[in-house]
Amino acid sequence: MSVEEVNKARTTVPFTREQLESVLRGRFFYAPAFELYGGVSGLYDYGPPGCAFQANIVDVWRKHFILEEDMLEVDCTMLTPYEVLKTSGHVDKFSDWMCRDLKTGEIFRADHLVEEVLEARLKGDKEARGVVEDANASAQADADKKKRKKKVKQIKAVKLEDAVVEEYECVLAKIDGYSGEQLGELMVKYNIGNPVTGEPLEPPKAFNLMFETAIGPSGQLKGYLRPETAQGQFLNFNKLLEFNNGKTPFASASIGKSFRNEISPRAGLLRVREFLMAEIEHFVDPLDKSHPKFDEIKDIELSFLPRDIQEAGKTEPIVMTVGEAVSSKMVDNETLGYFIARIYQFLMKIGVDSTKLRFRQHMANEMAHYAADCWDGELKTSYGWIECVGCADRSAFDLTVHSKRTGEKLVVRQKLETPIEVTQWEIDLTKKLFGPKFRKDAPKVEKILLNLSQEELAAKAEELKSNGKIAFQVEGIEGTVELDDKFVTIEKRTKVEHVREFVPNVIEPSFGIGRIIYSIFEHSFWNRPEDAARGVLSFPPLVAPTKVLLVPLSTHKDLQPVTKEVSKILRKAQIPFKVDDSGVSIGKRYARNDELGTPFGITIDFESAKDGSVTLRERDSTKQVRGSVEEIINAIREITYSGVSWEEGTKNLKPFVSQAETAAE
Amino acid sequence: MSVEEVNKARTTVPFTREQLESVLRGRFFYAPAFELYGGVSGLYDYGPPGCAFQANIVDVWRKHFILEEDMLEVDCTMLTPYEVLKTSGHVDKFSDWMCRDLKTGEIFRADHLVEEVLEARLKGDKEARGVVEDANASAQADADKKKRKKKVKQIKAVKLEDAVVEEYECVLAKIDGYSGEQLGELMVKYNIGNPVTGEPLEPPKAFNLMFETAIGPSGQLKGYLRPETAQGQFLNFNKLLEFNNGKTPFASASIGKSFRNEISPRAGLLRVREFLMAEIEHFVDPLDKSHPKFDEIKDIELSFLPRDIQEAGKTEPIVMTVGEAVSSKMVDNETLGYFIARIYQFLMKIGVDSTKLRFRQHMANEMAHYAADCWDGELKTSYGWIECVGCADRSAFDLTVHSKRTGEKLVVRQKLETPIEVTQWEIDLTKKLFGPKFRKDAPKVEKILLNLSQEELAAKAEELKSNGKIAFQVEGIEGTVELDDKFVTIEKRTKVEHVREFVPNVIEPSFGIGRIIYSIFEHSFWNRPEDAARGVLSFPPLVAPTKVLLVPLSTHKDLQPVTKEVSKILRKAQIPFKVDDSGVSIGKRYARNDELGTPFGITIDFESAKDGSVTLRERDSTKQVRGSVEEIINAIREITYSGVSWEEGTKNLKPFVSQAETAAE
Repeated sequence: MSVEEVNKARTTVPFTREQLESVLRGRFFYAPAFELYGGVSGLYDYGPPGCAFQANIVDVWRKHFILEEDMLEVDCTMLTPYEVLKTSGHVDKFSDWMCRDLKTGEIFRADHLVEEVLEARLKGDKEARGVVEDANASAQADADKKKRKKKVKQIKAVKLEDAVVEEYECVLAKIDGYSGEQLGELMVKYNIGNPVTGEPLEPPKAFNLMFETAIGPSGQLKGYLRPETAQGQFLNFNKLLEFNNGKTPFASASIGKSFRNEISPRAGLLRVREFLMAEIEHFVDPLDKSHPKFDEIKDIELSFLPRDIQEAGKTEPIVMTVGEAVSSKMVDNETLGYFIARIYQFLMKIGVDSTKLRFRQHMANEMAHYAADCWDGELKTSYGWIECVGCADRSAFDLTVHSKRTGEKLVVRQKLETPIEVTQWEIDLTKKLFGPKFRKDAPKVEKILLNLSQEELAAKAEELKSNGKIAFQVEGIEGTVELDDKFVTIEKRTKVEHVREFVPNVIEPSFGIGRIIYSIFEHSFWNRPEDAARGVLSFPPLVAPTKVLLVPLSTHKDLQPVTKEVSKILRKAQIPFKVDDSGVSIGKRYARNDELGTPFGITIDFESAKDGSVTLRERDSTKQVRGSVEEIINAIREITYSGVSWEEGTKNLKPFVSQAETAAE
Repeated sequence: MSVEEVNKARTTVPFTREQLESVLRGRFFYAPAFELYGGVSGLYDYGPPGCAFQANIVDVWRKHFILEEDMLEVDCTMLTPYEVLKTSGHVDKFSDWMCRDLKTGEIFRADHLVEEVLEARLKGDKEARGVVEDANASAQADADKKKRKKKVKQIKAVKLEDAVVEEYECVLAKIDGYSGEQLGELMVKYNIGNPVTGEPLEPPKAFNLMFETAIGPSGQLKGYLRPETAQGQFLNFNKLLEFNNGKTPFASASIGKSFRNEISPRAGLLRVREFLMAEIEHFVDPLDKSHPKFDEIKDIELSFLPRDIQEAGKTEPIVMTVGEAVSSKMVDNETLGYFIARIYQFLMKIGVDSTKLRFRQHMANEMAHYAADCWDGELKTSYGWIECVGCADRSAFDLTVHSKRTGEKLVVRQKLETPIEVTQWEIDLTKKLFGPKFRKDAPKVEKILLNLSQEELAAKAEELKSNGKIAFQVEGIEGTVELDDKFVTIEKRTKVEHVREFVPNVIEPSFGIGRIIYSIFEHSFWNRPEDAARGVLSFPPLVAPTKVLLVPLSTHKDLQPVTKEVSKILRKAQIPFKVDDSGVSIGKRYARNDELGTPFGITIDFESAKDGSVTLRERDSTKQVRGSVEEIINAIREITYSGVSWEEGTKNLKPFVSQAETAAE
């Protein structure tokens, strides 16, 4: 088959999730964790091929981002004390909205419930109108039917009024932006209750998604499992800056597990309670967010779904270059645009279908108040568009809150080429009076005063002038602390500064590796048209769990020495491979292998035993070529690690037609 | 310097932990987590060099074990439901003994407290006797003095009676084997209390070391963070066996974080609450624990500290080959011996000092009741001998308990060459009676009966015969279930079997990566005799965080194009490197680099700008050679990844003496 024929074949048999899942579970890419004990929803284990696939994707990520951009990788703990997550805002705000059914005790996630019910009604409307869906959608719909009927009772082929359809579609386009109260109003307005019984539910309540635990034997130190890897990077900012010899911009990066106690996880690998994240925190001067390598990526064209389109209730993306997106100010700055493009390049390397990728901008009410701009890399799957990568400009928020809470400066100091004159409020402390008055609390009191902002100093100066003293609270000291002008002087002074001090802004690309992996599973899966039961996972060789299946044509003893020899050579070349010397037909062995996504097969036959030549088979086209072991391994290495095409990599090798295989296939 | 000179230099300046720690923290190998918030004991973050060192060690582990032995890697969740860890025994038994000081509220770990106090008294005795310790020990002792004085008040130069010294030494040799009660008795007998105040403590109480949390929004599913990665591997046994086409022996492996809520963690990276583990579960036929590759390792000589020596209160190991250890039955079987040797080989590759490694056998009262044999790979550090690798034959315990609890078979089925006659108890159920009697509980009752062991069946047969019925408990059914012979038949029958069914035994090598890393830090650290303030970390190139420091001799613009060119070549060759183009002297840059453990320096000078030649410097000997960039990179690659010596790798390159560097060093 030619490349075109393969592409055609890949879309011939309609996709269904059930067939993919049966392959993924059958070949132990993953399995529900604790299945022996009935399982725990939202927890999954990766088996050998899933684990290798994940390791390969992490390896590509590390090379594409960390090595290429000289990022500083850190490995921080998952256990995180309460205070840190209180400061970061997670204790108060990291929640989803849940609704309880008081009769059955069931708990639903409010936004998902609204989405599910409205989508079901729209589908019912389509059925009633006799609208024909595309092949994939209708195959999936058929497969879903039985399940869905059970899950959402209201799905009936009921025609809706045109205005209602439009209203529903508009709500769905904005679904990520609603508050708990708004969701509650929608549920009342559209009569959304328990999808099975139809009974009304309690109004949405906030449920914090962090797993809580206690650290230490006394049980008194409250902690959480981190909901993201970012905080560890922020807290180590000063050490990282020093490691980088004080220079900015620079980025830190971290790869590790994070945890979210999802309310009611049901979407397989897409919504799990424990997941692998890879996060970058790029620290940049707030006055200069240009990027030195922006030119290299500015011509890349991407699908953007900006804020205004969504707020108009639409979902049609616009296609433009990253350069245009930044120059038109749709994307806030060059560094943000640079990372969006680099994310795109990464996703292409590991097998994402470019037609199923869009960058969606956060809506105003969806974005954190401090963020300058935020775009999600979303991948299309049978579950809809899924947020897989976030790319946010978090401004100086994180470093500022931690600095304020702990009294430690988290700033960059930059020598100024030309010194500047600065007029600002300054506070002087008569330190020798602090010790006697506050004893062991003296450093705490001093720290608070020395960390006052310009606005606060101006207010305190006014207070000192009018009252003859300033009053303030100190944690750990009861009542109000009062100090007169013997203790403090607050004045506006003009000085020449040679050093500029600033809190850097943070651009944060954040990857949900498990969601990306599942999306690639969907994007890579197809069934051979000649036998729809035969699934293939067309992973790019670079990330395929195993690169080569080594198959002796038969179990005859004459083939064993060559098989051993080729194994040894492959092991030495560090090309991950598996031997399949089971007695089943070669066609069956290749079929099994196609399901594992192994891009190459090396067949050993009786000719091999004589002259050392072997056959190389390509998974997608089932094309075969013949050559010496060395030639074949070179071709594999070139195609897998240097990214050359099959045609280019095998151009000096002889085409080969195996009768045995043709028959079996 | 020659190799011998380097070895001599490495032991000239006595080792102190404080100097090592100052380098490790100064260069951000690691740092206390949440230091900005005052830190949380037992939690540490790895900075860029620590993170890279860890990643390299994991990479070597993966190649040495998983790839070399075709193991099946899995990635299982850390969140684990209560039931699983109840079955495994962790809920009931995974505890340490803690003693509370009722006055101060302090909590101590009982065995560590006894150990610490007795060791302090023995040191005091040595001081009183005027015993001279070796240089390292006394340097460390000096450095410790101030700290220790504060920590353990009782340390005084007090001479003990000879019999007491012997008794203390005997207790210390057996310290890992005492129960909580025994520890309590020792504390009374030797008058051990709060080491600072001397006040008596509460008797030891068991404290479970697992972190607890609740899974899901209702808070009703109790869970823990896994204390080891093993359970996930056991629970997936059937899927792994199927993946391996039903064949044994095979091994699974897992690399990931585990958690232990240590009572009072104080020994830096050696005792932490969150840590990286790498574990192997090798499933093997209980009737045949031979290993096909045993011959390859049988002549390796190791230091063994067997059970009988420790039980005699001694600590002097014996040196013998693994072959002798197995044939003499000191080590239980070939597979266990094979893995002990493979562990040794792995530790040598990554930089462990072979003279600071011993394999200590668990004592009878220390070993789990089900274990057939267990050896700990211990590494000597300034904290004493530390368990870094465990290697246990866990028999069929784990698979058996999970199978019994869940009613699912976890067995291997092996076709017998010659069928055998088997006589055994069998139970028949009259299934049509179970449904009407038990309704929805019927499958549960049936499962219990079908899973009875041979011993249990024999007892039930006797019961049925004498009482006319059998009685038993079923979870979820109140009272006792009684069945007469209309429901069940229990008979001894003889059958011809063509398939043998067995629960495999598990050999479990289990690695604490963080402990190994810290030990290598100690084993690799030394100070240059010519300048004791200059520390060097002599990591093997294979695992060094960065392989090459690229240093232009000056910041002159003529050197910039060559520096850029060499960077590009190094990046393409995928050799991890750093550029140091800061203005400081080359000697200072190399000194900084020695602390980071970077094995090679490439110096770019004005000659390089003319003819493309560069200088290669070796970290330990500070030897230098000159050649083309290509030659130098080849030498680096050979030494780093193929393990050739510096002499061999650079034999075709010209020796080079840089006046600038000689002066600076």
